[in-house]
Amino acid sequence: MSEKTEARVLKGFRDSLPGESIARSEMIKRIISVFENFGFAPIDTPALEYTTTLLGSGSGETDKQLFRFMQGKRDVAMRFDLTIPLARYVASNFSKITFPFRRYHIAPVWRGENPQRGRFREFMQCDIDIIGSHSPLADAEVMSAISFALEKLELKHLLRVNSRKLSNGWFEELDLSEKSAEILRALDKIDKIGPEKVREELNNKAEIAPEKIDKIFELIDCQGASNQETFQKLEKLSSGHEVLQSGLSELKKHLEICQDLGLSEKCIFVDLSIARGLDYYTGIVFETDLKEEKLGEGLGSIASGGRYDNLVERFSNNSLAGVGASIGLDRILSALSDSSLIPNTNSTTQVMLLNLEENISSYSLGIVSELRKAGINAEIFFGNSKLAQQFKYAEKKDIPVVLFSGSDEEKTNTFAIKNIQNGQQTKGLNRSELVKSVASAIS
Amino acid sequence: MSEKTEARVLKGFRDSLPGESIARSEMIKRIISVFENFGFAPIDTPALEYTTTLLGSGSGETDKQLFRFMQGKRDVAMRFDLTIPLARYVASNFSKITFPFRRYHIAPVWRGENPQRGRFREFMQCDIDIIGSHSPLADAEVMSAISFALEKLELKHLLRVNSRKLSNGWFEELDLSEKSAEILRALDKIDKIGPEKVREELNNKAEIAPEKIDKIFELIDCQGASNQETFQKLEKLSSGHEVLQSGLSELKKHLEICQDLGLSEKCIFVDLSIARGLDYYTGIVFETDLKEEKLGEGLGSIASGGRYDNLVERFSNNSLAGVGASIGLDRILSALSDSSLIPNTNSTTQVMLLNLEENISSYSLGIVSELRKAGINAEIFFGNSKLAQQFKYAEKKDIPVVLFSGSDEEKTNTFAIKNIQNGQQTKGLNRSELVKSVASAIS
Repeated sequence: MSEKTEARVLKGFRDSLPGESIARSEMIKRIISVFENFGFAPIDTPALEYTTTLLGSGSGETDKQLFRFMQGKRDVAMRFDLTIPLARYVASNFSKITFPFRRYHIAPVWRGENPQRGRFREFMQCDIDIIGSHSPLADAEVMSAISFALEKLELKHLLRVNSRKLSNGWFEELDLSEKSAEILRALDKIDKIGPEKVREELNNKAEIAPEKIDKIFELIDCQGASNQETFQKLEKLSSGHEVLQSGLSELKKHLEICQDLGLSEKCIFVDLSIARGLDYYTGIVFETDLKEEKLGEGLGSIASGGRYDNLVERFSNNSLAGVGASIGLDRILSALSDSSLIPNTNSTTQVMLLNLEENISSYSLGIVSELRKAGINAEIFFGNSKLAQQFKYAEKKDIPVVLFSGSDEEKTNTFAIKNIQNGQQTKGLNRSELVKSVASAIS
Repeated sequence: MSEKTEARVLKGFRDSLPGESIARSEMIKRIISVFENFGFAPIDTPALEYTTTLLGSGSGETDKQLFRFMQGKRDVAMRFDLTIPLARYVASNFSKITFPFRRYHIAPVWRGENPQRGRFREFMQCDIDIIGSHSPLADAEVMSAISFALEKLELKHLLRVNSRKLSNGWFEELDLSEKSAEILRALDKIDKIGPEKVREELNNKAEIAPEKIDKIFELIDCQGASNQETFQKLEKLSSGHEVLQSGLSELKKHLEICQDLGLSEKCIFVDLSIARGLDYYTGIVFETDLKEEKLGEGLGSIASGGRYDNLVERFSNNSLAGVGASIGLDRILSALSDSSLIPNTNSTTQVMLLNLEENISSYSLGIVSELRKAGINAEIFFGNSKLAQQFKYAEKKDIPVVLFSGSDEEKTNTFAIKNIQNGQQTKGLNRSELVKSVASAIS
């Protein structure tokens, strides 16, 4: 016997068993149906790109996490997100694209970060973007599509939305434009560390004077318990400040369009603390909390996005603003798997033919063939193991119904079925009513 | 302005535009529906594996084509097929798998081979396998599932089937067992170079005596114009030769079961020249020709597979025979794209709302929202460009119907639609019959 190779999976990577693959496929199918319902079209890009394409466009952190190597004389790397490849794609295919370009892209990406619970080195990204439009409709379309997709997954959620124009406008007023990224990073931590620690950080790290920090917090303090209240407070603050006013009306307009597009006002909350870490957002930004009981706890944002300027500027002189968002598919899936929200089904088989004779008869195979043609997922047990073993196989695979047709059944032109869950058996069913009987048994 | 990075795609890789992605998704959706109809369940494995897992299991050729690199201290490589990862997967997850294990796996693989027309360094594999069964039913199930999947793609095809037991049995009789791989490789070329050149190769390269080559060809000469004729000739030849008889009865049984499972006899042809290059096949083997006029020419086999012994032996002491097959998805797609068999649609949008005013009214957005809720894929034109430009956008994206609802329509609670292809316009449609009217216009 030859020497064995150890069957190992790389650290941070994982296999998907049928149950998990079925759940993921079902989720993706539902999400796609909503994206296409909103007019987004699919694209794909290579898993590998020139390293120069990927480098230096994200944070320094992602640069370090690249799976990078030499392929012959070429310095290449596996994509770490779908946004940089989209920018490269738009520049490469500029003349073939109809703008505004609405695309979705659901595909794996790779990051060599240290694996944590629920974080892997290979995971699915699930992105939509509209490239080449300044219209506020585009922002509303993207956020609505995300919300309807989550609804299609039967997930109660809250969209927490803000406008970068508010913060950027205010920092400008305070002559703090140059420090705006630093301020946003600090403000992003309010939920975690509280306002006092954020003040300390702004004072010590960002070297901002206490009176200016007070002014920064005047904006944050506009936060109300309802959108109406927040808008009223912002109204006051922005009086006489043009950029702030523009941010406020952008936000109001956004909420209006979203409601026209069918979003419930209840699922949108204006949250002035939402900054989104990435520097490139320039307008509407949003994050999404899961509102399912228990499930959402400690999960963080399950979908987020916003408006950005000029996505393709690294690759092209064409100026293209856009708006995009991403659903944290794997994060949702791992949360759902821990709950009972996604049934853990090991197969999509609906009925199995038991096999008790040396050779399966043409009569029995004809039954399976007819069921399949009627769209019923059917399989045949191979070999003539003991009945108990065949039932065990069906149970393990979550097959709800088994079917039997031995020589007696063939003589009388009948068949028998058994419901695995409740044990109910029915014999002598008429062969001519096969599809009807089985369809009703599995429903 | 910052320096530009050239937007390049790596040699042998490619982007998929929406039209191609839509076509590929549609193909995959149909194939999956058949695989699940036959009781196969999806799985996934990582794109990256330890190099030791992948090396030395295929031919030396594939070893050279690996995208291989060091990830920290780990020697890793991108998977070049889905069969070796399946073997590793079965060994890794042995206790969690219900055997016989029917899985499908549709995913990209990577090979650094020289790109040719229709061949890429990144392409989709589309595999089904049944692991852990010696039953002839398994062979028939795999071949039938492949045939029904191709039927679901509306592709006329011919399954060319053979048994490796026939050739292996005959070479054993001729005391040529050790050279059987070499002989099969030579015989595989009959179609391309003709029998005389094959004889030469067997004589010169494989150093087989002419009288033995005559004997080898006695088997090949059993080829008849019909399955019936081939079986009759094989009957004669195999008289007294046990292994040959077993191969013959295996082949007959296979055809019988396939027909019981609903395959037409007309789409199965016993072809004694089918050897399948890979050494590991041990029983039934098959290839598939496209029978569409013109399309099939020079395309080669679009789906193939067969029975093998002990897939997981490199990783485990468990002995698991199996049978599997693969559909050449990208090959079919590239052939279909050149034809008109797949409509080249740039989006899945069914209706677009024209936009002629500064702000889109709630009335209009409500119309889009209602259409979407009814499952109709709808998009909104952003911005108020000239009408001609909006129509051009709809045409480019193959959107069949546009909808208009200005202030006049809002007052009268109506809307207007226009069919882009035939130019037919209908005004004053009743808002309360929105879904009905649009559904009939797009059908």
